[in-house]
Amino acid sequence: MPAELKAFCVKAMLRSGVTQPDAHIIAEVLVTTDTWGVFTHGTKQLRLLLQNLRSGRLQATSRPQVAAEGPAWAILDGQYAMPMVTSCMAMELAIQKAKSAGMAYVGVKHSSHFGAAGYYASLALKQDMIGLSMTNTDPCMTVPGAKGAVLGTNPIAYAVPAGEERPILLDIATSTVAASKVFAAKALGKQIPADWLVDAEGRPTTDPNDYEYPDQGALLPMTGHKGYGLALLVEILAAGLTGAMMINGVKSWIVDSADLVNQGHAFMAIDVRSIMPLPEFKNRIDWLIRQIRGSPRATGANRIFLPGEAEWEKRDQALAQGMRLPEDVFVSLAELAHQVDLKTDFEALFV
Amino acid sequence: MPAELKAFCVKAMLRSGVTQPDAHIIAEVLVTTDTWGVFTHGTKQLRLLLQNLRSGRLQATSRPQVAAEGPAWAILDGQYAMPMVTSCMAMELAIQKAKSAGMAYVGVKHSSHFGAAGYYASLALKQDMIGLSMTNTDPCMTVPGAKGAVLGTNPIAYAVPAGEERPILLDIATSTVAASKVFAAKALGKQIPADWLVDAEGRPTTDPNDYEYPDQGALLPMTGHKGYGLALLVEILAAGLTGAMMINGVKSWIVDSADLVNQGHAFMAIDVRSIMPLPEFKNRIDWLIRQIRGSPRATGANRIFLPGEAEWEKRDQALAQGMRLPEDVFVSLAELAHQVDLKTDFEALFV
Repeated sequence: MPAELKAFCVKAMLRSGVTQPDAHIIAEVLVTTDTWGVFTHGTKQLRLLLQNLRSGRLQATSRPQVAAEGPAWAILDGQYAMPMVTSCMAMELAIQKAKSAGMAYVGVKHSSHFGAAGYYASLALKQDMIGLSMTNTDPCMTVPGAKGAVLGTNPIAYAVPAGEERPILLDIATSTVAASKVFAAKALGKQIPADWLVDAEGRPTTDPNDYEYPDQGALLPMTGHKGYGLALLVEILAAGLTGAMMINGVKSWIVDSADLVNQGHAFMAIDVRSIMPLPEFKNRIDWLIRQIRGSPRATGANRIFLPGEAEWEKRDQALAQGMRLPEDVFVSLAELAHQVDLKTDFEALFV
Repeated sequence: MPAELKAFCVKAMLRSGVTQPDAHIIAEVLVTTDTWGVFTHGTKQLRLLLQNLRSGRLQATSRPQVAAEGPAWAILDGQYAMPMVTSCMAMELAIQKAKSAGMAYVGVKHSSHFGAAGYYASLALKQDMIGLSMTNTDPCMTVPGAKGAVLGTNPIAYAVPAGEERPILLDIATSTVAASKVFAAKALGKQIPADWLVDAEGRPTTDPNDYEYPDQGALLPMTGHKGYGLALLVEILAAGLTGAMMINGVKSWIVDSADLVNQGHAFMAIDVRSIMPLPEFKNRIDWLIRQIRGSPRATGANRIFLPGEAEWEKRDQALAQGMRLPEDVFVSLAELAHQVDLKTDFEALFV
C-alpha cells in the first residue's frame, strides 16, 4: 500500500542522514508519482538519490536560500539540498507570491534531478491555483541539424483546478519519448518508430541499440523544431535566468561521479481567485473537460481522456487497493533496502 | 519594399474606417510578419481582416478596456477592436507591469484572429524582457480518441533577448503542422505524412483531400497527447481565465458570418533586469546560442539554426533588398486594392 511504501522510503532516508521533515516530503513526492503510474520517476529513484548523497553531490542538511526576490518572482539557491525539498519550497514560494501579485515565477539554481515535474505543478491545486513546473536536464536530445545530444529532455508540466471534475494535469518531456521507452524497446528486442532517436551520426534510426546514454545517439525532439524550441524555452527559464548550468554544463545525476549537477528549475503559480471569481473559473473548466470528453469518438476509440485523468484514476485505485510495483522498481527498492539494512521491513511490505 | 507595402496597407485601412494610429500598428504587425517569411500570417490576412470589419464582427473605432487588474496581471476586454491593436496594448501592459512586479500575465477576451503570435512576444525584446504570446482559435485539431475538431491549433510563441546574437524567437502551432501545409499539399496533388491529419472517421490519413475546413477531418496535435496537452494549456490561459469563448464556442474568423468570434489571448512578460544583471543574462544567452550552433553536425547538415535565426535573416534581406511576395499574397492584396480602389498605388508597388 502507498502508506507502507512511504514509511519504508522515510526509514531508508533517515538511515541515510536525511532529516525527518525532509524525508516525509521526499517520500510524498516519490510515492505520489508511483500512484499516478509514473513508476520511472517514483520510488525507483530513491536508491540513486541516496547514492548522490553519499557521493557528496547532495547534502542532507543543506537548506535552500532565497538568493533574490521581487513582488512576483524569486530565485532560490538550492544549495544542493535534496532537490524534492528545494522544489516544494520553490513552488510554495511561487504560490505565496501569487496570492498578492496574482502570479509569480520562482527559479532555482544549484539543484539536481527533482523527479516528476508534474508533482510540483500539482501543489498549486491545493490553493486553487494554476501551477507550472519545468526543469533543464543534462543533454540527451539532439536538435535539427546536430548529431549528438544538445539539450536535455526538459519537461514541462502544468496543473489546473476544476470544480466537480478532476484537475487537469500534464507532465511531458519535450523529446518525442522519454529515454525509458527506448530502453524498454531495447530490453524487448523491438524496433522503434523513426522519430524517437538518431544514431551516432545523427541519422534517424529504428534500432534502440543505437542509443547508449550518455555517449552515443540521442533522442529526437517532439515534432522536430517544435520540441527543440520548447526545450530551449525551458532551458532559459530554468537555467538561463536562474544561474544554473546550461546544456552540456549540466552533469548527469545518474552517472557515478562527485561532480555537482547544478540543474535549474522553473515554477509558476497563477492565482485564479485574483483574476476571476473561483466558482466561475471552476464551472468553465468543468464545462471544457466535459465538452472534450463528450466529443464524437474516432472509430474504435472507447474514451477520450483529459490530461491527468488516467493518472488520477490509477491513484484512486492505488490508495484503495494498493499498487503492483513493476519489477525494475521492486529490484531497485530491494537493493536500497539491502544497502540501508532494512531487509526485514522490506520483505514484510513487498514480498 | 516593406516600407511601401506598409504604406499600401495603411492606405487600405484608412479607406476602411480604421484610424491612422491603428492602421500603422496593424500594418507594422502584418509587414513585419511578411519580412520573417511567414507569409501565411502577414499582409495576406488584411483583406479578410477588413471584411470582418465590414460585416460588423470588428469595430474600427472600438477601444480595448482594462476589465480587471492586479500587480502582476490584467484582463483586457478587447471590445472587438482590431485584434492586432488590442494585442499590442495587452503586451505593452504586461511589459509595464513586469517592470515593477518582475513578471506579468495579461489575458484578453472579446477579440479575434490576431495574426502571428510571435510578433507580440517580440515586443518584449525592446525592453530586454522575455515575452510569451498565445491564443486559442476555433477548433480544427482533434485529440487522441476523438474523430473531429476539438481544439484550435492554439499557438505558443516566445522571444528571448540576447547580447551580440539575434534574439531567440519561436512561434509554433500545437498541431503537427498548420492547416496551410495541408492546403499546399492538396494544391500540389501530394500525399502528406500520416501524423498531420485524420479523416472524417478520425483515422490518420495521408490524403490532404480528407480535410475540408471546418467541416471534415481535423489536424493532429503534435506528438499526440503532448500537443493536445499544450493546446489545452493555451486554451485555459487564453480563454478559460479571461472569459473568452472556449473550443467550439469560438467562431471562425475566416467563414463569412456576422457572429462575434470572441477568441482569447494570453501574454506574459518577464523582466530580465529585475532578476539577473542584464549583461550577465545576455552573455549567458549568447553562450547558449553559440554552443548550440557549434554542436557537431549530423551527416549532410550544413547548419544548426536557432529558433528565429532564419526569420531574422529573411527580415534583413527584405529590408535591404525587398521581398518577393508569394502569389497567394499577391492575389489577396490585388483583390483588396480593387475593393478599396487603390489600384494605381498597388500597381506602382508590386507590378
